[in-house]
Amino acid sequence: MVQKCLRGRILTFTAEPQSPEDESAHLYIEDGALVIEDGIITACGTFSEINEQLSETAEIIDHRPALLMPGFIDTHLHFPQVQVIASWGAQLLDWLENYTFPAEAKYSDIAHAERMAVHFFDELIGQGTTTTVAYCSSHKASADAYFAEAARRNMRVIGGKTMMDRNAPAETCDTAQSGYDDSKALIASWHGKGRALYAVTPRFAITSTPAQLEASGALAREHPDCYVQTHLDENHAEIHTTLELYPDAPDYLGIYEHYGLLGPKTLLGHCIHLEPREIDVMIETASKPVFCPTSNLFLGSGLFDYEGLRARGAECAIATDIGGGTSYSMLQTLNEGYKVQALRGPKLHPYRAFYWITLGNAKALGLEDKIGTLDVGSEADIVVLDSKATPAMALRMEVCNTLAEELFILQIMADDRSISETYVAGEAMKAR
Amino acid sequence: MVQKCLRGRILTFTAEPQSPEDESAHLYIEDGALVIEDGIITACGTFSEINEQLSETAEIIDHRPALLMPGFIDTHLHFPQVQVIASWGAQLLDWLENYTFPAEAKYSDIAHAERMAVHFFDELIGQGTTTTVAYCSSHKASADAYFAEAARRNMRVIGGKTMMDRNAPAETCDTAQSGYDDSKALIASWHGKGRALYAVTPRFAITSTPAQLEASGALAREHPDCYVQTHLDENHAEIHTTLELYPDAPDYLGIYEHYGLLGPKTLLGHCIHLEPREIDVMIETASKPVFCPTSNLFLGSGLFDYEGLRARGAECAIATDIGGGTSYSMLQTLNEGYKVQALRGPKLHPYRAFYWITLGNAKALGLEDKIGTLDVGSEADIVVLDSKATPAMALRMEVCNTLAEELFILQIMADDRSISETYVAGEAMKAR
Repeated sequence: MVQKCLRGRILTFTAEPQSPEDESAHLYIEDGALVIEDGIITACGTFSEINEQLSETAEIIDHRPALLMPGFIDTHLHFPQVQVIASWGAQLLDWLENYTFPAEAKYSDIAHAERMAVHFFDELIGQGTTTTVAYCSSHKASADAYFAEAARRNMRVIGGKTMMDRNAPAETCDTAQSGYDDSKALIASWHGKGRALYAVTPRFAITSTPAQLEASGALAREHPDCYVQTHLDENHAEIHTTLELYPDAPDYLGIYEHYGLLGPKTLLGHCIHLEPREIDVMIETASKPVFCPTSNLFLGSGLFDYEGLRARGAECAIATDIGGGTSYSMLQTLNEGYKVQALRGPKLHPYRAFYWITLGNAKALGLEDKIGTLDVGSEADIVVLDSKATPAMALRMEVCNTLAEELFILQIMADDRSISETYVAGEAMKAR
Repeated sequence: MVQKCLRGRILTFTAEPQSPEDESAHLYIEDGALVIEDGIITACGTFSEINEQLSETAEIIDHRPALLMPGFIDTHLHFPQVQVIASWGAQLLDWLENYTFPAEAKYSDIAHAERMAVHFFDELIGQGTTTTVAYCSSHKASADAYFAEAARRNMRVIGGKTMMDRNAPAETCDTAQSGYDDSKALIASWHGKGRALYAVTPRFAITSTPAQLEASGALAREHPDCYVQTHLDENHAEIHTTLELYPDAPDYLGIYEHYGLLGPKTLLGHCIHLEPREIDVMIETASKPVFCPTSNLFLGSGLFDYEGLRARGAECAIATDIGGGTSYSMLQTLNEGYKVQALRGPKLHPYRAFYWITLGNAKALGLEDKIGTLDVGSEADIVVLDSKATPAMALRMEVCNTLAEELFILQIMADDRSISETYVAGEAMKAR
């Protein structure tokens, strides 16, 4: 078996850091090395100890002085919105109508979807993101294009065709039955094939009839190893409209609860304006709230209560939410996540931040045995980080004394120029 | 006289745009040209009409399809904080003590100040910023380094040595007398020399004794053509401490008012938590509040009330506030400025945004006859903008139909890679 050995400064988290001073929750090796065989990390240690065990034919790739970290995980984004980013000026519901639905309508064209899938994954790889949890459009073809392109790159991705059968233009709508059938077919085609996993994806309660949410619940029951993803409590107008459409529901989350859509594999985008009962139900069902800072700020949705939800025991994920979000970068996402939390306090410290976009998101997905760490046995999704990638960063790094400081500089100042390389299952994808 | 002709898409504002649809407040020429002679714009029009008038020896530089706009103006930043950006986690007062004062202390060393001045202006030129209004450190040498480096680049800059004589480490303090004397000497050396202008710069009331504010007021009276810059109402702890130090003042702004520091040439950084009387006084004196979005978010200071202040007639400026701010880019500043306003509403539309960082800031400085426009007679500070600088932007631009949309894409997605060139008084500085 061909061995590949990456040399660099290794950083991987082992648990959630409890404070900026908590050095017990990560492994850091100054002159470290990883051995990769057949897409899996088979050794992790100091370069000197690793070097002794290497086969004669091993390829050593020296990334010093870069940091080697687990590839970043983006737990909520919209594949058909790559051309929607930075669309001017409305709040959620107008923004959907004016920009998003027209853009998504184009994904009925498989050639368009395939071309956009190449751009989508190129961009994410360029940002160090190796796992995406994406909404495709309502067209089965868009999900086929998404999974096919990810498979070509051997990426561990999660995704699903969006289900929506009302309150959207006809060309972006399915029906309760066709949404069920197409989802079922996609699960058969892609779920568990290679590294792909499927998420049942009713967009949100506004665009799904009760019959469609019923069908979504049936899919979730029939495929308990699939994920469920939807949106919750993003802004006030959305909540108001939702409750008008489901007048018998105790609250917004109660709708999803009623149709059996909650559980530890359920990802709920936004969760900004939660009622106390909703928080209780979220905790009881172990459903996962997903924080999307650049999107929440861009759409003026509000400030996610990360510390409040954590204190209640919620396992929060974090994500870009392209194209309501304004950057594909999980580092820029941390930058604005920091700023949202700075307005709420306490602040998002760098150990917690880098834990979050790696092991934290992996745990939220229940995939911590596969991704989000550099542990032996993990899939070799690895990002190579250069903290001096721009002149402004290099100047700042002159007076950087600790690992936590360096991570914070990456968290606040970095963009894709700091991603020297991104490995997917052991293959260098950025240079390629 | 040697003529230089820049060809490209010309965009310059003539007044403050009143809505996203207001096309009456700017001049846009699809195939435009500017003629530059001796650092001044001597013609502006369509390329075909300009081309007929050009001398035979004129150098034509073709920037198509880039946008040519006036160079950006940054109205509040701290030269000695280039190595402070992205310092972890406190609010204003701790942040000053833990990071800022130690960094500023180093600027007593002229060699350090000179080296940093090169980095500082390189970075800003790289971001398309051609005018800066900067706080130097309390050391006269730091202001000499700032102005000398700007003069070498022939930049129109404003700046001043910070005056602070208490509540800071001894090595960063002056005295009321030495602060007065050094400021006086710097005014004699630099104010009105070449393109430089001086700003009397008491940091803020916490770090100035009454005697020093008295001396600052004397400087302002003795040099009415100089600016005054200081900080106001950034966060609650700062306000509380300030009012303890000046128990007789009616409010924070009342302190500066008492010492004769207000007027149309006074720039007040932050102005987030204003009392009604402070707003009245600000309007009466035509003092200028300065919005620093990346800094306000990073330090968790709060949300600037841009629309409220505008409605009262305040002429607001906008700025990076490096190093409390997290980016040297006025485009990134607009991105986060948009997000701050999205949380407050109404949103900052792209015409207003690009007006603001050019003519708007020039007007706030009373320099609209010199900078911030491409009018004939203006100084030839010009930025060349590429809206497709990154793959993500190029993909988004495929479906861009209007100038306002293009500007919004620059406002939300661009960084220094979109700055193809920056001209200072007609000289290309970025390539250099």
